[in-house]
Amino acid sequence: MKIIIDTLGADNSPHAMIDGAILALEENAEISVVIVGDEEIIKEKTAKFKDRVEIIHTTAAIDCHQAPAMAVRSGENSSVVLGLSALRKNEEYSAFVSAGSTGAVLTGAILKVGRIPGVLRPALCPFLPTKTGNQTMLIDCGANMDSKPENLLQFAIMATEYLKASGRENPKIALLSVGAEDEKGNELVHEAFKLLKQKTAEGKINFVGNIEARDVLNGEIDAVVCDGFAGNVLLKTAEGAMAFAFSKIKDMFYTNLSTKLGWQLCKKEVNKMKAAIGEEAAGGTIFLGILKPVVKAHGNSNAVAFKNAILFAAEASRLDLKDKISAALSAQ
Amino acid sequence: MKIIIDTLGADNSPHAMIDGAILALEENAEISVVIVGDEEIIKEKTAKFKDRVEIIHTTAAIDCHQAPAMAVRSGENSSVVLGLSALRKNEEYSAFVSAGSTGAVLTGAILKVGRIPGVLRPALCPFLPTKTGNQTMLIDCGANMDSKPENLLQFAIMATEYLKASGRENPKIALLSVGAEDEKGNELVHEAFKLLKQKTAEGKINFVGNIEARDVLNGEIDAVVCDGFAGNVLLKTAEGAMAFAFSKIKDMFYTNLSTKLGWQLCKKEVNKMKAAIGEEAAGGTIFLGILKPVVKAHGNSNAVAFKNAILFAAEASRLDLKDKISAALSAQ
Repeated sequence: MKIIIDTLGADNSPHAMIDGAILALEENAEISVVIVGDEEIIKEKTAKFKDRVEIIHTTAAIDCHQAPAMAVRSGENSSVVLGLSALRKNEEYSAFVSAGSTGAVLTGAILKVGRIPGVLRPALCPFLPTKTGNQTMLIDCGANMDSKPENLLQFAIMATEYLKASGRENPKIALLSVGAEDEKGNELVHEAFKLLKQKTAEGKINFVGNIEARDVLNGEIDAVVCDGFAGNVLLKTAEGAMAFAFSKIKDMFYTNLSTKLGWQLCKKEVNKMKAAIGEEAAGGTIFLGILKPVVKAHGNSNAVAFKNAILFAAEASRLDLKDKISAALSAQ
Repeated sequence: MKIIIDTLGADNSPHAMIDGAILALEENAEISVVIVGDEEIIKEKTAKFKDRVEIIHTTAAIDCHQAPAMAVRSGENSSVVLGLSALRKNEEYSAFVSAGSTGAVLTGAILKVGRIPGVLRPALCPFLPTKTGNQTMLIDCGANMDSKPENLLQFAIMATEYLKASGRENPKIALLSVGAEDEKGNELVHEAFKLLKQKTAEGKINFVGNIEARDVLNGEIDAVVCDGFAGNVLLKTAEGAMAFAFSKIKDMFYTNLSTKLGWQLCKKEVNKMKAAIGEEAAGGTIFLGILKPVVKAHGNSNAVAFKNAILFAAEASRLDLKDKISAALSAQ
C-alpha cells in the first residue's frame, strides 16, 4: 500500500514529516510511501528505505495564511496539489497525509481528488478522547459552514459506514444540541432531527437523539453530528478548556513546599497522562467523503504524531469507504 | 434595595435558596429580600431577619421539564411568575434571582417584566473564568437560537454598556468564529463582523475582531459575542472538558504509591482550586436586556453559590443598565 506524504507547509516541515514517514516504514512493513517535497533532503534521509520510497520533487509550500481556493488554483507546483493530483491519477496510491494548511488540503481534496458519488459535502472528522476511553467521532469539525439538514444526515450516514467498517457494531449517532430533549435546538437541529429519526426508523442508522456539548466527552456515543461551525467551537473549546485546567493544575503544584514535593512524586504520571491525551487527540483527522482517504495531521505535529497520522491513513484505506459510503448514500 | 428570591424549582430547593438569602442578608446590610415560596418554612428560617424579609407565598414550582412558554402562561401561581410579576409591578423591587428552570425564567422575564426599549432579544451572559483571571463575558449562551446579525450587534452594545458600568474601560469585544482571521466564519459571522466594524468606526464599541474558541479562556478580551447555539456549545464544552481533565488528574493521583502520597500532599490545594473555579463560574448569570436585572443561578446551586448570585444581582441593579442600554441602542 502506497501512502502519499506531504512534507511541506507545517510547523516542523520538512524534517518531522520525513522522520514520521521513516517511523511508519519501520513500524508497518506493508506500507510504501510517496514523499512530496525537497528531493535532496528526502533522498538523504530515506536512503535506508529506498525500495519503499518514491519522491515527487517540489519546494513550493502553501502557507496557512493564503486563501485556500486561490492557493490551490494558482499552486499547481505546491506539494498539496502535486500530492493530491497524484492520488487521483495513480491507482496504486492509496491515501494522502498532510500537516499543512487545512483549508488547502480540504479544497485540494475536493478539486483534485473529488467526492465519493452521492456525497454533497465531505466533512472533517476528528476523534475525541473520552472518559470511558471509547473515542467519539466529531463530524463535522469545520470543513462546512452553514450546513443544511441533508448535509447532517449524510454526515450521520458516512460516520455510520466508517465506524462499522472499523469494527464498531451499530454505532450510536447523536446530534449536537443545547440539551438532550427532542425539542431543543435551532432550526437546523430541528430539521436534521426529523431526517435522522426517519433514517433510523428505516434501519439505516442508529440515531440516539440530541446530546448536550457537556456530555460529548462522556464516551457514551460513537459519533456526534453537527454543523462545521458548532463542531469547530466544540473541538477548540475542548482544547482550550483542557489547556486551562492543566495550567491550573500546574499552578497548584507550585503553591507551597508540600505541593512542590507532590509534583516530584507525580510528575512522571502527569506527563504520561498529558502525552496520552495529546497523542489520542493527534492521531490524524480524516476528510470523509473524498474518493480516497485524505488525512490531515495537526499543524504542529512532531515525527511520532505524523507517523500516527500515516498509519491511520493506511488503516482508513483498508476500509473500502468509497464503495460503502457510495452504496449507503445511493440507498437513501 | 429589595431583591426578589425564587426558592422553588431548583435541585436544592427550598432550603439552599433560603439559606443563601440569609447569607446575603448577613453579608450585605443594604439588602432586603422578598422571598417567594412556602411561607411557613421561610418564616421559620428567617425569623432573625424579619424586618428585612417580605414573603410571597406559593408552593407551585415550574419543573425544568415543562415547556417554558406553556409553563409560564399556565403557571400564574408559580414562584417564577409571581416573582417576576412583582418585579415589574413594584417600583421598590430591584432584581430577581432564581435557580429554577432556565427556560421559564427567560420566558417569564420577557413576558412578565419586559425588554428594555430598543432591545430586540435579551441575552444570557455568564462570565467565564480565564487564565489571566480577567473574567470574560459570553453573550449569548443560549437564550436565542438562530440569531440575526443585528442581534449580535446589540449583544456587543449591551455587553459594552454592562462592562463599562462595572468599571472596565473601553471593553474589548470579540466575535466567536472558527479562526481569528477577518474572513473566517459562517454567514452570520460575516454579516455581524461588518456591523461590528462599522459600530467601532463610529466609536460606539471596541470590536477587536474574530476569536477562535480555543483562545476565549486566555482572558485577553472582555466579552465574546455569538449566537446562543454556539455560545451554549462553548459553555457546555468548557464545563465538560474541565470535568474530563479533572477526572484524568484524579485517576493520575490513584496510579501508584508515589502518586497517592502526592495526593496527600496536594489534596488541600487541589480542592481549593476546584472550588475557586466552581465559584467563579457559578456567580449567577444575568439575562441582559430586561427592564430590571433578572439573574439565573445554576440549578444545582448550594447556599453559598446562591448567595453569590443574590449579591451579583444587587450589584447589577446598581449599574443603571436600563437607561444606559436604552440610550446606547437608540443612538444606533
